[in-house]
Amino acid sequence: MKNIEHIGIAVKDLAEANKTYEALLGTASYKMEEVESEGVNTSFFKVGESKIELLGATRSDSPIAKFLEKRGEGIHHIAFNVEDIYAEMSRLQREGFVLLNAEPKKGADNKLVAFLHPKSSNGVLVELCQEIAK
Amino acid sequence: MKNIEHIGIAVKDLAEANKTYEALLGTASYKMEEVESEGVNTSFFKVGESKIELLGATRSDSPIAKFLEKRGEGIHHIAFNVEDIYAEMSRLQREGFVLLNAEPKKGADNKLVAFLHPKSSNGVLVELCQEIAK
Repeated sequence: MKNIEHIGIAVKDLAEANKTYEALLGTASYKMEEVESEGVNTSFFKVGESKIELLGATRSDSPIAKFLEKRGEGIHHIAFNVEDIYAEMSRLQREGFVLLNAEPKKGADNKLVAFLHPKSSNGVLVELCQEIAK
Repeated sequence: MKNIEHIGIAVKDLAEANKTYEALLGTASYKMEEVESEGVNTSFFKVGESKIELLGATRSDSPIAKFLEKRGEGIHHIAFNVEDIYAEMSRLQREGFVLLNAEPKKGADNKLVAFLHPKSSNGVLVELCQEIAK
Protein backbone atom coordinates (compact mmCIF):
# COMPACT_ATOMS: atom_id res chain seq x y z
CA MET A 1 0.00 0.00 0.00
CA LYS A 2 1.48 3.34 -1.09
CA ASN A 3 -0.59 5.72 1.02
CA ILE A 4 -4.12 6.53 2.19
CA GLU A 5 -6.07 7.61 -0.89
CA HIS A 6 -9.17 8.57 1.09
CA ILE A 7 -11.39 7.89 4.06
CA GLY A 8 -15.05 7.34 3.18
CA ILE A 9 -17.68 8.72 5.57
CA ALA A 10 -21.36 7.79 5.25
CA VAL A 11 -23.70 10.75 5.84
CA LYS A 12 -27.47 11.20 5.76
CA ASP A 13 -27.59 14.68 4.23
CA LEU A 14 -24.71 15.35 1.84
CA ALA A 15 -25.41 19.10 1.51
CA GLU A 16 -25.39 19.59 5.28
CA ALA A 17 -22.33 17.37 5.75
CA ASN A 18 -20.51 19.38 3.07
CA LYS A 19 -20.93 22.51 5.20
CA THR A 20 -19.80 20.66 8.34
CA TYR A 21 -16.66 19.25 6.72
CA GLU A 22 -15.84 22.54 5.04
CA ALA A 23 -15.83 24.10 8.54
CA LEU A 24 -13.97 21.16 10.09
CA LEU A 25 -11.24 20.85 7.49
CA GLY A 26 -10.97 24.54 6.62
CA THR A 27 -11.24 23.78 2.91
CA ALA A 28 -14.13 23.49 0.45
CA SER A 29 -15.23 20.32 -1.36
CA TYR A 30 -13.37 20.32 -4.68
CA LYS A 31 -15.57 17.81 -6.48
CA MET A 32 -18.95 16.13 -6.27
CA GLU A 33 -19.58 13.02 -8.33
CA GLU A 34 -22.45 10.53 -8.52
CA VAL A 35 -21.62 6.85 -8.95
CA GLU A 36 -24.96 5.69 -10.28
CA SER A 37 -24.11 1.96 -10.24
CA GLU A 38 -23.50 2.18 -6.47
CA GLY A 39 -26.45 4.49 -5.70
CA VAL A 40 -24.11 7.00 -4.09
CA ASN A 41 -23.32 10.68 -4.35
CA THR A 42 -19.79 11.63 -3.30
CA SER A 43 -18.05 14.82 -2.22
CA PHE A 44 -14.25 15.13 -1.96
CA PHE A 45 -12.02 17.25 0.29
CA LYS A 46 -8.23 17.38 0.03
CA VAL A 47 -6.26 16.92 3.28
CA GLY A 48 -2.51 16.61 2.73
CA GLU A 49 -1.86 13.74 0.30
CA SER A 50 -5.22 12.12 1.17
CA LYS A 51 -8.90 12.92 0.72
CA ILE A 52 -12.04 12.79 2.79
CA GLU A 53 -14.91 11.35 0.71
CA LEU A 54 -18.41 12.03 1.99
CA LEU A 55 -20.92 9.41 0.81
CA GLY A 56 -24.66 10.05 0.56
CA ALA A 57 -27.19 7.48 -0.65
CA THR A 58 -29.22 8.20 -3.79
CA ARG A 59 -31.40 5.07 -3.47
CA SER A 60 -32.87 3.31 -0.43
CA ASP A 61 -31.45 -0.05 -1.59
CA SER A 62 -27.85 1.18 -2.06
CA PRO A 63 -24.98 -0.10 0.11
CA ILE A 64 -24.62 3.32 1.80
CA ALA A 65 -28.37 3.49 2.61
CA LYS A 66 -28.10 0.04 4.20
CA PHE A 67 -24.99 1.03 6.17
CA LEU A 68 -26.74 4.19 7.47
CA GLU A 69 -29.78 2.18 8.47
CA LYS A 70 -27.72 -0.41 10.32
CA ARG A 71 -24.88 1.66 11.82
CA GLY A 72 -25.84 5.32 11.47
CA GLU A 73 -23.49 7.98 10.17
CA GLY A 74 -19.74 7.47 10.48
CA ILE A 75 -16.59 6.15 8.88
CA HIS A 76 -17.46 3.65 6.16
CA HIS A 77 -14.11 2.56 4.69
CA ILE A 78 -10.40 3.30 4.23
CA ALA A 79 -8.99 3.38 0.71
CA PHE A 80 -5.31 2.81 -0.07
CA ASN A 81 -3.46 3.70 -3.27
CA VAL A 82 -1.73 0.74 -4.87
CA GLU A 83 0.64 0.57 -7.83
CA ASP A 84 -0.91 -2.50 -9.44
CA ILE A 85 -4.38 -3.45 -8.25
CA TYR A 86 -4.33 -6.88 -9.93
CA ALA A 87 -1.02 -7.85 -8.26
CA GLU A 88 -2.18 -6.50 -4.90
CA MET A 89 -5.49 -8.40 -5.09
CA SER A 90 -3.60 -11.64 -5.81
CA ARG A 91 -1.11 -10.99 -3.00
CA LEU A 92 -3.85 -10.23 -0.45
CA GLN A 93 -5.88 -13.26 -1.46
CA ARG A 94 -2.80 -15.44 -0.91
CA GLU A 95 -2.38 -13.81 2.51
CA GLY A 96 -5.92 -14.95 3.42
CA PHE A 97 -7.86 -11.70 2.94
CA VAL A 98 -11.36 -12.03 1.52
CA LEU A 99 -12.00 -10.03 -1.66
CA LEU A 100 -15.50 -8.65 -2.23
CA ASN A 101 -14.99 -8.46 -5.99
CA ALA A 102 -13.08 -10.90 -8.17
CA GLU A 103 -12.17 -8.16 -10.67
CA PRO A 104 -11.47 -4.44 -10.13
CA LYS A 105 -14.36 -2.13 -11.01
CA LYS A 106 -14.65 1.54 -11.99
CA GLY A 107 -15.07 3.73 -8.91
CA ALA A 108 -15.39 7.47 -8.35
CA ASP A 109 -12.56 9.87 -9.15
CA ASN A 110 -11.13 7.98 -12.17
CA LYS A 111 -10.04 4.89 -10.22
CA LEU A 112 -10.05 1.14 -10.54
CA VAL A 113 -11.18 -0.16 -7.16
CA ALA A 114 -11.63 -3.40 -5.24
CA PHE A 115 -12.82 -4.08 -1.70
CA LEU A 116 -11.74 -6.48 1.05
CA HIS A 117 -14.34 -7.96 3.38
CA PRO A 118 -14.18 -6.35 6.86
CA LYS A 119 -14.16 -9.78 8.50
CA SER A 120 -10.57 -10.41 7.37
CA SER A 121 -9.31 -6.97 8.48
CA ASN A 122 -10.66 -6.48 12.01
CA GLY A 123 -13.98 -4.93 11.04
CA VAL A 124 -12.44 -2.44 8.59
CA LEU A 125 -13.82 -2.23 5.05
CA VAL A 126 -10.66 -1.74 2.96
CA GLU A 127 -10.67 -0.37 -0.58
CA LEU A 128 -7.76 -0.68 -3.00
CA CYS A 129 -7.46 2.11 -5.59
CA GLN A 130 -5.41 2.43 -8.72
CA GLU A 131 -5.54 5.60 -10.79
CA ILE A 132 -6.66 4.90 -14.35
CA ALA A 133 -4.03 6.18 -16.79
CA LYS A 134 -5.45 9.00 -18.92
CA MET B 1 -6.04 20.59 9.22
CA LYS B 2 -2.63 19.86 7.64
CA ASN B 3 -3.02 16.17 6.87
CA ILE B 4 -4.19 12.82 8.26
CA GLU B 5 -1.85 11.94 11.12
CA HIS B 6 -3.39 8.51 11.66
CA ILE B 7 -6.47 6.34 11.58
CA GLY B 8 -7.19 4.55 14.86
CA ILE B 9 -8.59 0.99 14.64
CA ALA B 10 -9.97 -0.79 17.73
CA VAL B 11 -8.97 -4.48 17.87
CA LYS B 12 -9.61 -7.29 20.34
CA ASP B 13 -6.23 -9.01 20.11
CA LEU B 14 -3.38 -6.62 19.38
CA ALA B 15 -0.78 -9.34 18.68
CA GLU B 16 -3.05 -11.05 16.12
CA ALA B 17 -4.08 -7.73 14.54
CA ASN B 18 -0.41 -6.79 14.23
CA LYS B 19 0.14 -9.84 12.03
CA THR B 20 -2.96 -9.05 9.98
CA TYR B 21 -1.98 -5.43 9.35
CA GLU B 22 1.62 -6.35 8.62
CA ALA B 23 0.27 -8.62 5.86
CA LEU B 24 -2.31 -6.06 4.68
CA LEU B 25 0.00 -3.06 4.55
CA GLY B 26 3.15 -4.91 3.55
CA THR B 27 5.12 -3.23 6.34
CA ALA B 28 5.85 -4.10 9.98
CA SER B 29 4.66 -2.17 13.03
CA TYR B 30 7.44 0.33 13.82
CA LYS B 31 6.40 1.09 17.40
CA MET B 32 4.23 -0.20 20.21
CA GLU B 33 3.36 2.09 23.08
CA GLU B 34 1.06 1.80 26.08
CA VAL B 35 -0.91 4.87 27.15
CA GLU B 36 -1.68 3.83 30.70
CA SER B 37 -3.98 6.77 31.46
CA GLU B 38 -6.28 5.64 28.61
CA GLY B 39 -6.00 1.90 29.30
CA VAL B 40 -4.79 1.30 25.76
CA ASN B 41 -1.93 -0.42 24.01
CA THR B 42 -1.07 0.99 20.58
CA SER B 43 0.81 -0.26 17.54
CA PHE B 44 1.83 2.01 14.65
CA PHE B 45 2.30 1.36 10.93
CA LYS B 46 3.54 3.92 8.45
CA VAL B 47 1.53 4.36 5.20
CA GLY B 48 2.67 7.30 3.08
CA GLU B 49 2.58 10.46 5.21
CA SER B 50 0.00 8.90 7.58
CA LYS B 51 -0.13 6.06 10.10
CA ILE B 52 -2.44 3.25 11.01
CA GLU B 53 -2.74 2.99 14.81
CA LEU B 54 -4.09 -0.29 16.18
CA LEU B 55 -5.71 0.10 19.60
CA GLY B 56 -6.08 -2.74 22.10
CA ALA B 57 -7.65 -2.37 25.55
CA THR B 58 -5.53 -3.05 28.64
CA ARG B 59 -8.45 -2.64 31.08
CA SER B 60 -12.11 -3.65 30.84
CA ASP B 61 -13.22 -0.12 31.83
CA SER B 62 -11.12 1.70 29.20
CA PRO B 63 -12.75 3.67 26.34
CA ILE B 64 -11.48 1.12 23.78
CA ALA B 65 -12.90 -1.82 25.78
CA LYS B 66 -16.26 -0.04 25.88
CA PHE B 67 -16.13 0.71 22.15
CA LEU B 68 -15.33 -2.96 21.37
CA GLU B 69 -18.20 -4.12 23.57
CA LYS B 70 -20.68 -1.74 21.94
CA ARG B 71 -19.56 -1.69 18.29
CA GLY B 72 -17.10 -4.53 17.82
CA GLU B 73 -13.77 -4.16 16.04
CA GLY B 74 -13.37 -1.41 13.47
CA ILE B 75 -12.32 2.16 12.78
CA HIS B 76 -12.37 4.15 16.00
CA HIS B 77 -11.21 7.66 15.02
CA ILE B 78 -9.44 9.87 12.48
CA ALA B 79 -6.59 12.08 13.69
CA PHE B 80 -5.47 15.22 11.87
CA ASN B 81 -2.18 17.09 12.26
CA VAL B 82 -2.65 20.75 13.18
CA GLU B 83 -0.08 23.55 13.48
CA ASP B 84 -1.47 25.05 16.69
CA ILE B 85 -3.85 22.87 18.66
CA TYR B 86 -5.01 25.70 20.94
CA ALA B 87 -5.92 27.94 18.00
CA GLU B 88 -7.63 25.05 16.18
CA MET B 89 -9.66 24.08 19.27
CA SER B 90 -10.88 27.69 19.61
CA ARG B 91 -11.71 27.92 15.92
CA LEU B 92 -13.66 24.64 15.91
CA GLN B 93 -15.56 25.57 19.08
CA ARG B 94 -16.61 28.85 17.43
CA GLU B 95 -17.74 26.82 14.38
CA GLY B 96 -20.06 24.82 16.66
CA PHE B 97 -18.04 21.61 17.08
CA VAL B 98 -18.21 19.97 20.51
CA LEU B 99 -14.82 19.45 22.19
CA LEU B 100 -14.43 16.40 24.43
CA ASN B 101 -11.59 18.01 26.38
CA ALA B 102 -11.23 21.66 27.34
CA GLU B 103 -7.42 21.47 27.25
CA PRO B 104 -5.09 19.36 25.07
CA LYS B 105 -3.69 16.27 26.77
CA LYS B 106 -0.59 14.11 26.23
CA GLY B 107 -1.33 11.28 23.77
CA ALA B 108 0.73 8.47 22.25
CA ASP B 109 3.67 9.18 19.91
CA ASN B 110 4.80 12.44 21.54
CA LYS B 111 1.67 14.42 20.70
CA LEU B 112 -0.66 16.91 22.30
CA VAL B 113 -4.15 15.74 21.44
CA ALA B 114 -7.78 16.79 21.74
CA PHE B 115 -10.99 15.10 20.59
CA LEU B 116 -14.22 16.36 19.01
CA HIS B 117 -17.51 14.67 19.88
CA PRO B 118 -18.77 12.48 17.00
CA LYS B 119 -22.23 14.08 17.22
CA SER B 120 -20.93 17.32 15.69
CA SER B 121 -19.01 15.58 12.86
CA ASN B 122 -21.48 13.05 11.40
CA GLY B 123 -20.62 10.18 13.72
CA VAL B 124 -16.85 10.53 13.28
CA LEU B 125 -14.64 10.77 16.36
CA VAL B 126 -12.04 13.38 15.32
CA GLU B 127 -8.67 13.80 17.04
CA LEU B 128 -6.46 16.85 16.67
CA CYS B 129 -2.71 16.22 17.06
CA GLN B 130 0.20 18.58 17.49
CA GLU B 131 3.73 17.24 17.71
CA ILE B 132 5.41 18.24 20.98
CA ALA B 133 8.65 20.12 20.22
CA LYS B 134 11.64 18.15 21.51
